[in-house]
Amino acid sequence: MKIISTLEALQQERVQLAKEQKSVGYVATMGFLHEGHQSLMKRSKAENDITVLSIFVNPLQFGAGEDFETYPRDAVRDQRIAEQEGVDIVFMPEAAAMYPGNSTIKLHVADRVDVLCGKSRPGHFDGVVTVLSKLFHLIQPNRAYFGLKDAQQVAVVQALVHDLNFPLEVVPVSTVREEDGLAKSSRNVYLSEQERQVAPAIYQALQKAKQSIQDGAKDPEKVASAVKEFINSQTSGRIDYVEILSYPALKPVKEIDARIIIAAAVYFDKARLIDNLVLEADGSIMDRF
Amino acid sequence: MKIISTLEALQQERVQLAKEQKSVGYVATMGFLHEGHQSLMKRSKAENDITVLSIFVNPLQFGAGEDFETYPRDAVRDQRIAEQEGVDIVFMPEAAAMYPGNSTIKLHVADRVDVLCGKSRPGHFDGVVTVLSKLFHLIQPNRAYFGLKDAQQVAVVQALVHDLNFPLEVVPVSTVREEDGLAKSSRNVYLSEQERQVAPAIYQALQKAKQSIQDGAKDPEKVASAVKEFINSQTSGRIDYVEILSYPALKPVKEIDARIIIAAAVYFDKARLIDNLVLEADGSIMDRF
Repeated sequence: MKIISTLEALQQERVQLAKEQKSVGYVATMGFLHEGHQSLMKRSKAENDITVLSIFVNPLQFGAGEDFETYPRDAVRDQRIAEQEGVDIVFMPEAAAMYPGNSTIKLHVADRVDVLCGKSRPGHFDGVVTVLSKLFHLIQPNRAYFGLKDAQQVAVVQALVHDLNFPLEVVPVSTVREEDGLAKSSRNVYLSEQERQVAPAIYQALQKAKQSIQDGAKDPEKVASAVKEFINSQTSGRIDYVEILSYPALKPVKEIDARIIIAAAVYFDKARLIDNLVLEADGSIMDRF
Repeated sequence: MKIISTLEALQQERVQLAKEQKSVGYVATMGFLHEGHQSLMKRSKAENDITVLSIFVNPLQFGAGEDFETYPRDAVRDQRIAEQEGVDIVFMPEAAAMYPGNSTIKLHVADRVDVLCGKSRPGHFDGVVTVLSKLFHLIQPNRAYFGLKDAQQVAVVQALVHDLNFPLEVVPVSTVREEDGLAKSSRNVYLSEQERQVAPAIYQALQKAKQSIQDGAKDPEKVASAVKEFINSQTSGRIDYVEILSYPALKPVKEIDARIIIAAAVYFDKARLIDNLVLEADGSIMDRF
């Protein structure tokens, strides 16, 4: 496994891979890897000659008062996990190399962001598409793998690739969960023991919503209300949102009659957890864009 | 020579070129080709295995009241010229294919645009970097050739490539001129016979400025004033601007002691002409970034 930290070394490596006609799969992360990331690496390994993992805590996607400084980091452990998963190249650039000065070019996400996490994180997705544009150009992947736990991010990245004709395929990958259903997340370490015990209620509430849609429920407001009630009754968390929207356009729906996302975000004492299900009209899980 | 009009056909062609390990040079144009464009094609031919020419009158870079509708077009003649120059692929997409709907992702040029042509064309360079991002992704050139007649465009494209780490080299190419010094331009056809006779005074004024810098002139205001006076005394045109700025940062300078651009824009009855010289501190012509 090669560990590359400069843009120049990565660019040289990429030229060599092109000469060798290797297909490249790419997993973009902010490190502190967990089994969610590992499932992305496994999928990339299965579908490409070479798998590149980037570890970069991107300052541009954190707002004022967010957890950029305290975002968990463990490079040694991350590299061990990447090695175990058979990753070929780990790219770990310095922030000063990625953002060497004021940028003349600004990217802005003008749609799909006034809902869900985008609503409470102004500018967050502008930072995401900026860093991904740079990383896509540096790594030039054939396929890029993103976890559906951040389903809004997947929708925004799909728009980025579509709108600007990036020559790559966005591959959404199902959320990986703990045995009790809690979605894997780097931020789960922030939960108190008591919070950790009740946190699976978020997923349980989404599962109940899925069941009600399979049983014929069509009214998004009623389904969302039931999700909120369940989370409120089972946890000490404060609900940020529970929303049902079309997917990936992320528009309000009057009736559940096409592909939708049911998404929830819940504040606990030191962590804000998100989870979601992307469902077809009949309540079955989305498999592929 | 292949003429390709759909994005899908171009993408297939590009995959094939990658398999054959061909280097690709790219010339982006809005058509109505002239010897300026031809010099870009010749340079690309000399430096790459394959030369791709795009012809696309990009609606996004025209403002309200500008000449999008009347911009001169002649596809048959353009294809003949491209064939003569040995171009391998002409890409002529439909606007509906390039812009299939409202874009979620917006690109904005936040610097280098409040001067020169950018000042009187708000949003123009946002349209330029948007279409070029798309075309760069579709064509994936190793080198992209741009004429220094649009020196501000070259500076903005260089910022685009630098800021977002596009894996390509921007190659600036010297302005091609008529025998009397007038810079070649698709818009020269709009000049009246009398205007055409006096228009070379713009270049003559820039040449005089170059000479005065070589003779030791350091004050940008004095040099610019002399350029304005000469153009006013020799033509019926109305000066839009004459500016001396650092290059490619395009910032005001107090003294001519590093690389600068002297640029002029002059309105005639039905055409606005631009011209410039990019000079080193000693008054010699810039050769390369």
